[in-house]
Amino acid sequence: MLKHLVRVRAIAKTAISSSFPKPKNKISCHSIPLTFAISSSPMAATDESLRKSLAEKHAAVEAQGNAVRALKAAKAAKPEIDAAIEALNALKLEKSSIEHSLLGGSDSREAFRQSVVNTLERRLFYIPSFKIYRGVAGLFDYGPPGCSVKSNVLSFWRQHFVLEENMLEVDCPCVTPEIVLKASGHVDKFTDLMVKDEKTGTCYRADHLLKDFCNDKLQRDLALSSDKVAELKHVLAMLDDFSAEELGAKIKDYGIVSPETKNSLSDPYPFNLMFQTSIGPSGFSPGFMRPETAQGIFVNFKDLYYYNGNKLPFAAAQIGQAFRNEISPRQGLLRVREFTLAEIEHFVDPLDKSHPKYPEVADLEFLMFPREEQMSGQSAKRIPLRDAVSKGIVNNETLGYFIGRVYLFLTRLGIDKDRLRFRQHLANEMAHYAADCWDAEIECSYGWIECVGIADRSAYDLRAHSDKSGVPLVAHEKFAEPKEVEKLVITPVKKELGLAFKGNQRMVVEALEAMPEKEALDMKAALESKGEVEFQVCTLGKNVTIKKSMLTIQKEIKKEHQRVFTPSVIEPSFGIGRIIYCLFEHTFYTRPSKAGDEQLNVFRFPSLVAPIKCTVFPLVQNQKYEEVAKLISKSLTAVGISHKIDTTGTSIGKRYARTDELGVPFAITVDSTSSVTIRERDSKDQVRVDVDKAASVVREVTEGQRTWEDVWSTFPHHSSTSADE
Amino acid sequence: MLKHLVRVRAIAKTAISSSFPKPKNKISCHSIPLTFAISSSPMAATDESLRKSLAEKHAAVEAQGNAVRALKAAKAAKPEIDAAIEALNALKLEKSSIEHSLLGGSDSREAFRQSVVNTLERRLFYIPSFKIYRGVAGLFDYGPPGCSVKSNVLSFWRQHFVLEENMLEVDCPCVTPEIVLKASGHVDKFTDLMVKDEKTGTCYRADHLLKDFCNDKLQRDLALSSDKVAELKHVLAMLDDFSAEELGAKIKDYGIVSPETKNSLSDPYPFNLMFQTSIGPSGFSPGFMRPETAQGIFVNFKDLYYYNGNKLPFAAAQIGQAFRNEISPRQGLLRVREFTLAEIEHFVDPLDKSHPKYPEVADLEFLMFPREEQMSGQSAKRIPLRDAVSKGIVNNETLGYFIGRVYLFLTRLGIDKDRLRFRQHLANEMAHYAADCWDAEIECSYGWIECVGIADRSAYDLRAHSDKSGVPLVAHEKFAEPKEVEKLVITPVKKELGLAFKGNQRMVVEALEAMPEKEALDMKAALESKGEVEFQVCTLGKNVTIKKSMLTIQKEIKKEHQRVFTPSVIEPSFGIGRIIYCLFEHTFYTRPSKAGDEQLNVFRFPSLVAPIKCTVFPLVQNQKYEEVAKLISKSLTAVGISHKIDTTGTSIGKRYARTDELGVPFAITVDSTSSVTIRERDSKDQVRVDVDKAASVVREVTEGQRTWEDVWSTFPHHSSTSADE
Repeated sequence: MLKHLVRVRAIAKTAISSSFPKPKNKISCHSIPLTFAISSSPMAATDESLRKSLAEKHAAVEAQGNAVRALKAAKAAKPEIDAAIEALNALKLEKSSIEHSLLGGSDSREAFRQSVVNTLERRLFYIPSFKIYRGVAGLFDYGPPGCSVKSNVLSFWRQHFVLEENMLEVDCPCVTPEIVLKASGHVDKFTDLMVKDEKTGTCYRADHLLKDFCNDKLQRDLALSSDKVAELKHVLAMLDDFSAEELGAKIKDYGIVSPETKNSLSDPYPFNLMFQTSIGPSGFSPGFMRPETAQGIFVNFKDLYYYNGNKLPFAAAQIGQAFRNEISPRQGLLRVREFTLAEIEHFVDPLDKSHPKYPEVADLEFLMFPREEQMSGQSAKRIPLRDAVSKGIVNNETLGYFIGRVYLFLTRLGIDKDRLRFRQHLANEMAHYAADCWDAEIECSYGWIECVGIADRSAYDLRAHSDKSGVPLVAHEKFAEPKEVEKLVITPVKKELGLAFKGNQRMVVEALEAMPEKEALDMKAALESKGEVEFQVCTLGKNVTIKKSMLTIQKEIKKEHQRVFTPSVIEPSFGIGRIIYCLFEHTFYTRPSKAGDEQLNVFRFPSLVAPIKCTVFPLVQNQKYEEVAKLISKSLTAVGISHKIDTTGTSIGKRYARTDELGVPFAITVDSTSSVTIRERDSKDQVRVDVDKAASVVREVTEGQRTWEDVWSTFPHHSSTSADE
Repeated sequence: MLKHLVRVRAIAKTAISSSFPKPKNKISCHSIPLTFAISSSPMAATDESLRKSLAEKHAAVEAQGNAVRALKAAKAAKPEIDAAIEALNALKLEKSSIEHSLLGGSDSREAFRQSVVNTLERRLFYIPSFKIYRGVAGLFDYGPPGCSVKSNVLSFWRQHFVLEENMLEVDCPCVTPEIVLKASGHVDKFTDLMVKDEKTGTCYRADHLLKDFCNDKLQRDLALSSDKVAELKHVLAMLDDFSAEELGAKIKDYGIVSPETKNSLSDPYPFNLMFQTSIGPSGFSPGFMRPETAQGIFVNFKDLYYYNGNKLPFAAAQIGQAFRNEISPRQGLLRVREFTLAEIEHFVDPLDKSHPKYPEVADLEFLMFPREEQMSGQSAKRIPLRDAVSKGIVNNETLGYFIGRVYLFLTRLGIDKDRLRFRQHLANEMAHYAADCWDAEIECSYGWIECVGIADRSAYDLRAHSDKSGVPLVAHEKFAEPKEVEKLVITPVKKELGLAFKGNQRMVVEALEAMPEKEALDMKAALESKGEVEFQVCTLGKNVTIKKSMLTIQKEIKKEHQRVFTPSVIEPSFGIGRIIYCLFEHTFYTRPSKAGDEQLNVFRFPSLVAPIKCTVFPLVQNQKYEEVAKLISKSLTAVGISHKIDTTGTSIGKRYARTDELGVPFAITVDSTSSVTIRERDSKDQVRVDVDKAASVVREVTEGQRTWEDVWSTFPHHSSTSADE
């Protein structure tokens, strides 16, 4: 029998790790927690990329200026010169906007975020939930375009991971009985430290208050001594390492009070972040809304292994809602009380973590931030995956394979590869049982955000549920021929044990039989030298005296037909909402309207995630054009392209602007009954295509069978000055 | 100001109506509740359809017998005769199985259900959740094939409803603050009556105990007087009409005790079926896990109406988890504590409930069970939808349109149209505000199960949230030209009112201004005749005396530019889990193995819902064949067909049987390097196709671009005796 050690699932994952139990023991350690990673990283990489863009833009302005001068010198036609000037002005505007961002620092980051968020809310990508009742912090609805983006992201996830890898997808309930989350460690350890306003009872996260105090002091108090500055910076760095007592002491030391009322605060105490409920009417069956989907897979391991023909490796996957009752949610869509997780548990023989498809990703090269670079104060750097695995920076092939697949997944969605890095957990961030952990972090206006966690969790989770349930969650490797193995055999002498321990005999026997080999050999030696020995029986909660006559311990040669072992699990876990929010920021940009009097918003979504693939506009309100539009709409439906007809009398420029704001990649404008124009969102380029070909061209280019460049070089160009903006 | 009447959402929907508040008032009435509909309907229609099948099978056996005799007489080749005999035996077996079902009655229904459920559990279509911890009643996981079926059903739902109708899909959280569910009526009325074992505290649904008692008595007590029989039957019919007091009295009268302990029972009392929790750490913000998804749409009406260009009609849709904390779940997958709902709220002008696409479904004809037929003891009958709408049996075109669309949705999934009926709610089942309600009921081994509710709920829900939140959830119809309307204008004389009511003046004024026209006219008449009148002010909770000097009431001609109104909502609501369970039963059948020594299970899933579309088998373990199989697998992936390779050395017959049990429609067997066979699941027919065409043929036939009959008539046939079973 395995001893019931209390172990904690150190959840190195998306929406979870930052507020997971503090690293007060060797089991779960998060010394550089997410909250710190977010707030203290001064968006260095963004500054860098901004500077790069600025240099590029500067060169482009110069080149375009020369072009305009050349046109004027050559006395080119007025429309041509005007178009060149217009392009020049646009470039200048973009340049000054980058300069502004660089100078503005955090203000500009907030301004950028505000304009993204305004657009998202105005176009109903998302809505604060229950808005008419003044909302609930940390709960958001996806409105129609957001819902569509989410559904596209999930479809692609299913395609990219579940179907391509033949994973076993499952769908388990959110309501979870206490025993499951007791086994996983969540009931005891899934907590944040909280303080209460002693008069009003308002609750705050203790670390947030301390962090805000330190940041505020550092920013505003110009008279701070350098010692004090160092002290406050040290506190910020240690924030997630503090125990309740240490946090409480700092709060007292600094005289931190309740932010709104200035009342004094209680001592910090742990608050469990799971939503608790009661299953059935009796009140005796406590349950929780699951804080992650993974446990539903672990408890089904036995059935899934059987379903897979009792063969390893295999992966199970689950997409579903997870819940965490945040003390005081901040950071909009990034820290919410209910969110969609997509999790994979890849079960593998701990003796063989190779992966047959690893060579398909080994040549990828991207930003990695290994442990060593973090410790020595360097920054993330581009490393070929093959090198990272072969040099042992990434623990094994399977982990490497998933890191590569996650990179492909995120960049295909439209995440900027220069603002995506894979950060390795430091040794003290990981649980003692974990072999290696990497987070896919995406940089946005909040800093570097952990969006996917990829962890080799060894056999921990399956063992925890085996222990608690008594059901062995193990795999078998049949030997081609039986193997002779030398085994230590512990044979209790039941009569002696019965006399000595009576009713407790069974528990003593079980404990003796469950001894690890080393312990048994030590006992054998002790019994031979001393004749008796003290022995701890966990299930009795006490020591007993074992005498030499009570058992034999000896090595025997045995024939074994199979190896029985607990599989290791490699777990990529995706915070879908966080990925989507970062995608919104990475694809958002503004450009001047044709008149130059306003900034227009655009989401540069790849077709794969765009909420609608195409819009169809009759150029003017006219029955003939509307009929053509309907015809094209029918063809689009037939080839499965989601689209929308806009027959309002609004100007075509405004209709393009509307559609750009939803990130619709293509627009078909009906300006004759025989042919139409197709406009690409980002270049604003238009080609002219026959009515009966329009739908199939849009299909080819949205489904990736054909590039826009190819379309552009195949069909006659349509001058944008006539109809566009 | 609208008065805050306490109204209840009479939820005529899938997973909800049966345990919704009992019809003790004119607001919510369910006098023929679902539980009764399930248990008391003696599967008449199944018996009928069984008898029909039996007659058909009888004729088929006779015909096949003649064919065998004819072959023998003609001295046909032995394989031909053998094949004919085999077919004859199969038909006889099917015939006797139907006879058995007919004779067996409820036993055979349970045996049938047991064999479906065994297959489903063995092949991991679903798994009792948290099985290694002995499970939790009413919670189930979908395993890999079940998860895939569910995902196919939801994709098709999205295609058939959301995309085809341009609905606005939203995605709202499950965690819901109390105020929202207070407005909807769930906090006060979403209850079942419960009794407790007075010693052990075990809880039971009061109506279940009474029902079990009556059924048991009727079945086992042969000495019952005819009066007693009538009484018990009456109790069964009235079960859902009983108040807590009436139920308690019956339980006392009949001496019903706790089923396991025989202890006495408490009086019945209401138990709220929502899972309760607490939002945030304060403990002052009660919340619930939503019992339906609809409220998330209603509270967003204003934004969605704006998103739709302030135009009616439009529909919003949501797919998501819903929760109900059943007292004692029964009926396997049909009554669960957590389930997936897919709901549509179609908002429409109450003065115009026509639907532009109604003609597309008007010619459909299917089983309908109007109110009148139910009251007069008739059974459901086939009615053309056009007639039902034109005769006013179905209240309006939009409701009719959705009934037709639901029919198409369910039958395309594979629901047997002869075991699908649309049952109209009786007048006393409906809430007072509802215009009309129809349930799509599907017959399975549990009886007729309500799987989709389609209700015209008038303006009730939007009004309830307008009232509670103070945010007007209304639509506007702009007049082309301003209209002159005669309007009753109530003008308070503030000075007089101030003198009379002081601090209460505002509330009196608001109440006066909110008077409906009729009430105001009555007041005007009373004031003119008597000079003063008593007036109830709800917000003050008392009557006040209004004098003639305090206000003027008179008709005035006013110019109006728009009409402001609360839209009606038509709500189709789908219990996805119930539909899937019924689909499992409707598509399941058994057939004898080739040797005739066992019954093999088959799910006759249409390709649309089949968890995997195709399997690929090398006929024997052989490197060349395996390479061809891999090649075909690659082509299938390229054309997006989900499939599985089975390279085990198992006999081909067993591999076919395995794949039939998962409902896989097609199997490609590689028996040469140039061509392969494609086998259709239900006919077991095989054709021979070139290797490079196999994937595209399977794609065409699974995507419905081509029928199997067409494939069968195009390609050379492959004799099944050589390889199949």
